[in-house]
Amino acid sequence: MKFISNSIGHEISAVLHGVDKKLINDANFLKSVVMDGLKKDNFTILKNIDHEFSPQGYTLTVLLSESHVAIHTYPEHNSIYFGLYSCKAKGHGRKTYEYFVKKLKPEEIVVDMKDIVVKK
Amino acid sequence: MKFISNSIGHEISAVLHGVDKKLINDANFLKSVVMDGLKKDNFTILKNIDHEFSPQGYTLTVLLSESHVAIHTYPEHNSIYFGLYSCKAKGHGRKTYEYFVKKLKPEEIVVDMKDIVVKK
Repeated sequence: MKFISNSIGHEISAVLHGVDKKLINDANFLKSVVMDGLKKDNFTILKNIDHEFSPQGYTLTVLLSESHVAIHTYPEHNSIYFGLYSCKAKGHGRKTYEYFVKKLKPEEIVVDMKDIVVKK
Repeated sequence: MKFISNSIGHEISAVLHGVDKKLINDANFLKSVVMDGLKKDNFTILKNIDHEFSPQGYTLTVLLSESHVAIHTYPEHNSIYFGLYSCKAKGHGRKTYEYFVKKLKPEEIVVDMKDIVVKK
């Protein structure tokens, strides 16, 4: 697979606070929200790996032609970490993030978005 | 597997510039450096996925009990993106990052390290 990366990528790092426990503990739902968001945002999904911890907690990373996305849940704190890096373009990945937020309905979000320059 | 996450995690996002082309294009070497660094830093490795692009480019994500790490190479720019998130403790993951830098010997680095609070 050939993919020419851009010289500027985009990174999103967020913690969603005050998420409904039922949603946090539904691994299938969380995974489908991430995958659906990536498709809507025109990412090319290569592979994914996830893990359900006992008694609770879910973690997922998705490898993309355009880099990666990861989520890690904190059921004990009602929060979810969302991290995404896209090498495709400035601002790319925001649709995936916004779709995730829309579906998870957090009470509060702490988010950091920035462009990353990979060329000198 | 039971893992109690901390209420403060640590995130490292870096671009290593001016890396030797031979190292950037050696996927086995890059993967072994990441894995060795994680072991030295006492991470628990769950699974990993990677992909080699044609004609060049390598991407890897490793799922950890303590979250994840990802690298994406840019052979056309002689640079490598390194991203890590650990839910274990303030500052955790720096040994992995420092080991990666030591082995890749970049001419220049742009790095951002920050603690992430997951508890409200």
